[in-house]
Amino acid sequence: MVVELISVGTELLLGHKVNTNAAFLAEQFAQLGLSMYYQTVVGDNAERLYELVETAYKRSDVVILVGGLGPTKDDLTKETVARFLNRELVEDEHSRKVIEDSFKNMSVAEIPENNWKQALVPVGSVVVENKNGTAPGLIIEDGDKTVILLPGPKRELMPMFENDIAPYLRQKQPDVIYSAIVKLCGISESKAEEKIHDLIDAQTNPTIAAYANNGEVHFRVTAHAEDEKSAKKLVKPIIKIMRSRFGNLIYTMEESVTLEQAILAMLRDRELTLTTAESLTGGMVAARLTDIPGASTVFKEGFVTYNNRAKHKMLDVKKSTLKEYGAVSEKTAKEMAKNGAFISGSDICISLTGLAGPNPEEGKPVGLVYMACSYNNRITVKEYHFKGSRARIRELAVTYALTMLRVCILEDEEERSKTNTKPLTPNP
Amino acid sequence: MVVELISVGTELLLGHKVNTNAAFLAEQFAQLGLSMYYQTVVGDNAERLYELVETAYKRSDVVILVGGLGPTKDDLTKETVARFLNRELVEDEHSRKVIEDSFKNMSVAEIPENNWKQALVPVGSVVVENKNGTAPGLIIEDGDKTVILLPGPKRELMPMFENDIAPYLRQKQPDVIYSAIVKLCGISESKAEEKIHDLIDAQTNPTIAAYANNGEVHFRVTAHAEDEKSAKKLVKPIIKIMRSRFGNLIYTMEESVTLEQAILAMLRDRELTLTTAESLTGGMVAARLTDIPGASTVFKEGFVTYNNRAKHKMLDVKKSTLKEYGAVSEKTAKEMAKNGAFISGSDICISLTGLAGPNPEEGKPVGLVYMACSYNNRITVKEYHFKGSRARIRELAVTYALTMLRVCILEDEEERSKTNTKPLTPNP
Repeated sequence: MVVELISVGTELLLGHKVNTNAAFLAEQFAQLGLSMYYQTVVGDNAERLYELVETAYKRSDVVILVGGLGPTKDDLTKETVARFLNRELVEDEHSRKVIEDSFKNMSVAEIPENNWKQALVPVGSVVVENKNGTAPGLIIEDGDKTVILLPGPKRELMPMFENDIAPYLRQKQPDVIYSAIVKLCGISESKAEEKIHDLIDAQTNPTIAAYANNGEVHFRVTAHAEDEKSAKKLVKPIIKIMRSRFGNLIYTMEESVTLEQAILAMLRDRELTLTTAESLTGGMVAARLTDIPGASTVFKEGFVTYNNRAKHKMLDVKKSTLKEYGAVSEKTAKEMAKNGAFISGSDICISLTGLAGPNPEEGKPVGLVYMACSYNNRITVKEYHFKGSRARIRELAVTYALTMLRVCILEDEEERSKTNTKPLTPNP
Repeated sequence: MVVELISVGTELLLGHKVNTNAAFLAEQFAQLGLSMYYQTVVGDNAERLYELVETAYKRSDVVILVGGLGPTKDDLTKETVARFLNRELVEDEHSRKVIEDSFKNMSVAEIPENNWKQALVPVGSVVVENKNGTAPGLIIEDGDKTVILLPGPKRELMPMFENDIAPYLRQKQPDVIYSAIVKLCGISESKAEEKIHDLIDAQTNPTIAAYANNGEVHFRVTAHAEDEKSAKKLVKPIIKIMRSRFGNLIYTMEESVTLEQAILAMLRDRELTLTTAESLTGGMVAARLTDIPGASTVFKEGFVTYNNRAKHKMLDVKKSTLKEYGAVSEKTAKEMAKNGAFISGSDICISLTGLAGPNPEEGKPVGLVYMACSYNNRITVKEYHFKGSRARIRELAVTYALTMLRVCILEDEEERSKTNTKPLTPNP
């Protein structure tokens, strides 16, 4: 069953409002197993709205209109739909009473005339009560097509959709959609797609969609079937293959888990503590980690050493290192990480030094970044050349530093499991 | 001139993403004096996209397509537009080089084949360089119609639009729009609106729009006229009144200047150095300041002291203070600021300690924040009770800390000018 969304409101066309209703409804439709091919936004203009309704009615089974049900002259969704469907507007008694009651409680002496307009409904509509406002929702069945009108304010729309419209649509559409997410770090979008290009090429049900997200790659695998169990069954083998091909690059398969959450959980599980020694990113890694409630069990303190003097004073980076190799160097990154761990008494220290631009310094190019990770008596260093604006370079550096942290711990564990070394004793 | 927007991406139809690009562009169009009657969202489907382009091309002067320019097979905006306009795709040499460069140095041995697709452009396109990604923007003039293709990721789209597309559209649109911005910090939106409610009530041309922005309030005053001079003349008297009513609350009237930029410039002018002592915000203040190129002349180092031990060890906060008053207290904030300035040898230290939630601690409520500013032998403390999510509380705290910093300097100067004290000697 194909559903189409028309959002009505000049405020959306002027950019005064972000169309979060569209995202909310789109997600709901997907969960109900409905297909949506188009979303349109149009202003408070009867002629243009009429044309859109006509087009949508032709190409979709269910047309949902949101907004334009209010009391003002600008609100003409209902009038336009009634005209298109050739149905008279009649007063709905219950809706009239809701309006009366809502004004009663507000101790308004006289109800402004235009409010009664909200009680008018096209003949043959199913009137859906609005428990959070005065404009009712409307379901109009017209042959094998359905037109649904919903109020625009989120606090009216959401409960009405969840309580009344979703059950109505569910009963019209037996199919169910199930989707799983696979989140990767440490790999580019194109590389990641290459690794599963056979799956992508062969996709029908489930489908596989990739999203690049600030240095991460997320894959969404979506199946539809008669019931949830069958849909899950379709998704499962694809996930299994992805797991085996991506291995450790997958940091989570939970919808709501972010990279920093995954890393904090990883450290917490292992009872490890972490510190940060940041130059280039000036506190961004620490800020991202502490965005997570309870970060303090893992992260106690961080160093922001933005000039050479601070690197020497706070992190004991040798003056000779800074002089000979410069602040943006492998050697400086290493000393920052090593000394950061020691000074803070943390198990792990991740350090970053680099050039975010806009101008080259020390004869080094913008985008050059060194990061080091000190863990378990070993210091790993990586060199990156990031492209983009200053903000982009810094953002990528943060994501790659978090990735590096993760990889260092995993590789260490792998190695120890091979050589049968004793597990690491957490810092006392 | 009528502009129409088509957003391409299945993720929008599935509700995985909110279409914030549409709101951003809509606002930009309105500022440019362009009319927009329709916005449409369509998935990664060539046939449906083709139909939409056809419809939009007929009814609008400028058709803007966003998204679907990436390297994967799903990305087919360019191919579809080329087919509709009957133009061959040819390789753009510069775009090819950008792709090569972006992969060079990333220690990728081989560039995945699908990436080259991003260098193909319809014959006769104006290629707009993407400084934050590999997919270029395209402007295609076709008789009296224009089709513009833009990349979907916000950090690529926004700078490209502002730097290249907006100037292009401005030159196509003869009626001139002139707007000025007034950016305030340290006042709420409703308070700010109250102060100029007479102007807001009387507005016609120019119009006055308020935007609350992460703890700041921005007013945009927009006039349209035959030429820029006349438009400016309309805006000027309104700005004059706003200046006199808001005074020091205005931190800038420059479009591109952010609060952190204004503050860094203020410190630089006065040859003052700054350090940060952060608990609650875990490095966010330092990160925001170092987002600005050249921050290092003012900001040398920062402390992230996330637990009590770190506050004592790094910032010498007395154990008795932490024990008696707790980490979230006026006294702790004061010691953090005072000692932070001393230890770092900076002229100013701003400190933050508080509870971002989700749970109360030390018997104190979520949202309670203390911040202190140590400057010129005086320590100022403020107590705030912020509302909202953890992220919101932390964000507001950063903005209010930057505001406090600014106010401390201005008040100190005012006082000194009254008492005729000698100007401050910068830290040697």
